[in-house]
Amino acid sequence: MEIQLWREILDPYALAVDELIVKFNHIIREYRHLYGYSPIEQVTGRVKTISSILEKAQKKNIPLEQIEDKIDDIAGIRIICQFVEDIYKVADIIRNRSDMIIKNEIDYIENMKKSGYRSYHITVFYDVETLKGTKRLQVEIQIRTLAMNFWATIEHSLQYKYKQNMPEHIRERLTSAAEAILILDREMSVIRDEIMDAQSSFTIKANM
Amino acid sequence: MEIQLWREILDPYALAVDELIVKFNHIIREYRHLYGYSPIEQVTGRVKTISSILEKAQKKNIPLEQIEDKIDDIAGIRIICQFVEDIYKVADIIRNRSDMIIKNEIDYIENMKKSGYRSYHITVFYDVETLKGTKRLQVEIQIRTLAMNFWATIEHSLQYKYKQNMPEHIRERLTSAAEAILILDREMSVIRDEIMDAQSSFTIKANM
Amino acid sequence: MEIQLWREILDPYALAVDELIVKFNHIIREYRHLYGYSPIEQVTGRVKTISSILEKAQKKNIPLEQIEDKIDDIAGIRIICQFVEDIYKVADIIRNRSDMIIKNEIDYIENMKKSGYRSYHITVFYDVETLKGTKRLQVEIQIRTLAMNFWATIEHSLQYKYKQNMPEHIRERLTSAAEAILILDREMSVIRDEIMDAQSSFTIKANM
Amino acid sequence: MEIQLWREILDPYALAVDELIVKFNHIIREYRHLYGYSPIEQVTGRVKTISSILEKAQKKNIPLEQIEDKIDDIAGIRIICQFVEDIYKVADIIRNRSDMIIKNEIDYIENMKKSGYRSYHITVFYDVETLKGTKRLQVEIQIRTLAMNFWATIEHSLQYKYKQNMPEHIRERLTSAAEAILILDREMSVIRDEIMDAQSSFTIKANM
Repeated sequence: MEIQLWREILDPYALAVDELIVKFNHIIREYRHLYGYSPIEQVTGRVKTISSILEKAQKKNIPLEQIEDKIDDIAGIRIICQFVEDIYKVADIIRNRSDMIIKNEIDYIENMKKSGYRSYHITVFYDVETLKGTKRLQVEIQIRTLAMNFWATIEHSLQYKYKQNMPEHIRERLTSAAEAILILDREMSVIRDEIMDAQSSFTIKANM
Repeated sequence: MEIQLWREILDPYALAVDELIVKFNHIIREYRHLYGYSPIEQVTGRVKTISSILEKAQKKNIPLEQIEDKIDDIAGIRIICQFVEDIYKVADIIRNRSDMIIKNEIDYIENMKKSGYRSYHITVFYDVETLKGTKRLQVEIQIRTLAMNFWATIEHSLQYKYKQNMPEHIRERLTSAAEAILILDREMSVIRDEIMDAQSSFTIKANM
Repeated sequence: MEIQLWREILDPYALAVDELIVKFNHIIREYRHLYGYSPIEQVTGRVKTISSILEKAQKKNIPLEQIEDKIDDIAGIRIICQFVEDIYKVADIIRNRSDMIIKNEIDYIENMKKSGYRSYHITVFYDVETLKGTKRLQVEIQIRTLAMNFWATIEHSLQYKYKQNMPEHIRERLTSAAEAILILDREMSVIRDEIMDAQSSFTIKANM
Repeated sequence: MEIQLWREILDPYALAVDELIVKFNHIIREYRHLYGYSPIEQVTGRVKTISSILEKAQKKNIPLEQIEDKIDDIAGIRIICQFVEDIYKVADIIRNRSDMIIKNEIDYIENMKKSGYRSYHITVFYDVETLKGTKRLQVEIQIRTLAMNFWATIEHSLQYKYKQNMPEHIRERLTSAAEAILILDREMSVIRDEIMDAQSSFTIKANM
């Protein structure tokens, strides 16, 4: 496929990512203004690179003309939360919006992947306006704590390096890191109310 | 009205401005990718300050609870074009979108204000999603050439300084500046096709 | 030359451009805070693309190893002013800084190019810190009014398209556009004090 | 002290922070281009708010005219690293630059505060150019892993809320969180070479 064609396909996804980052950042602002505390800590987004799309298509035997249908993370949004509880709050916020239609949800926190991966995934349909009219796209939203994100980022690059052959001693380290993160997230959850309350007075002071 | 209340009113307008800037910037990108030339050169936006809103409300005798209804430029988008012709092209683009509903249009280019002011104004209704649900807002979109914008910016600050009492010699200078700008825009229009074509090959080269 | 080598050469220029944009933007802020009016209206910058560098090297017969010496606009800063008078004020500001050393200055405003091009050019030496130590670079700073910039941008793309063979009717339009711009800049200069004063009260009000 | 005076004092610090963020971000870029891996993961910065400065001055009995001398974190830069080892690498990079002069260093990693706080602090002198000439400022640079930063952010807001009276059960949770983070950072250090190597191939691929 030519670069010009790829651009026509991927541009709307880039628009969707930009719009959604603006929208989620505004949710942060709205929460902080109203309650001094936001369940969302940070938002990032990306469009999959052409080479990653091709790799995934090949691996999963997806013909080129079905790429947009079958690959649901061409546009990806990542939402970082402070606490595990906030993740479910964010999922609720997304469910209640009229501009995103839920396609499906997977809870890898309750059901951790055997690699140790934990995150909450929501795939939504989202409409963007192009020169050729409205286009409905799929966007994958990953919701995680900061600690889960730290682990996932490292695991992702190791996965990428070793493919199916990750050495045992590395896999073990990743597992004990995943456990340390689980403990960390739990300790934080226990004092969540105190932290939220402290941060809320902090924010209010900063706004004065 | 308290600052907290103002925030609740103005935050959605800030969101609308941010979303619209993303959307118009994407139109620029889409045009450049497809044709090498975009009718939009640049987009900016702003939310009216509280003090400007109060000033306007007082001047026009608008009670506080009707502010959002009666003041249609709380959210303002400014679109800068290279050529007068592009202005009408941009108006068309806006009319064809499904996410902005035209409330009204005023053509101050065909019908220049007696001050010399020229611009195309479109007021649209635009929906944003807040924590309390969807909210429909008014947004004023001003479309101008770079030269018109230059003149309008200067005239605006002089207007602000002198209110109704602008000295005659200044008014005269503004008028001859407005004439120079009219000539400039006309000269540019005559060679518009050559310029568009030149810029399009320039863009294509830059993309290689 | 390989892409990796180009990167090593060009990265410090990108750093210089980024640092200078931060510094000139801060001058704007400092002036507005102190006087309500800044002689600089806007700053942009760019690093020349590899293909433009190669084109210029070929045209001027510059061997690759002398590129950094002989091409003084690999890093370019463009400063936009409201008034012709501000241009000379900005040149003064640059001369008085201890972090930029003047290499040479050319006044294309007093001595307009025969194409109609007007701008004030200053080439400075500027030091950046790299992983390999301090590196002294050349940076070309172009200072112009908004109107001069408008004309120069259009002329540049036409120049690029037609090379030495610009059709006579286009050259004529460019010349009359250049004249309209000269008039415009002069009209503005005459009422500069009133405009500066008006903008200064505007800024002060906005800061309240 | 009047707001105008505060601005004159604080503006140069804002400039220093902006310049340093540009410079550290460029170090990230340079490392990734040269080695595919950067010891710096992320940089942020802030200028202390007026109210925080006043609070600190009062608490430490610092007269207003000695604020700039005695408060060394009016400008603060925070550098986030992936691994503990990277922290010392970054300290080295800072020591080798000619545009920052080390005032002092404190290693709260080797010598953890009894609260559990860990970070490497470097205070530097840094020169900025203002309209009134060169001004030498102090800047505090905090270097931490992502995990240390997570803990420190939470502890800071709790500290702020409870002042000297943090309840025992919260202090205990913070301590066990600090331990989980210590384990996490250690597990990561053990497989640092594999991770660096994996990320480096990842970056190189992304650049292709």
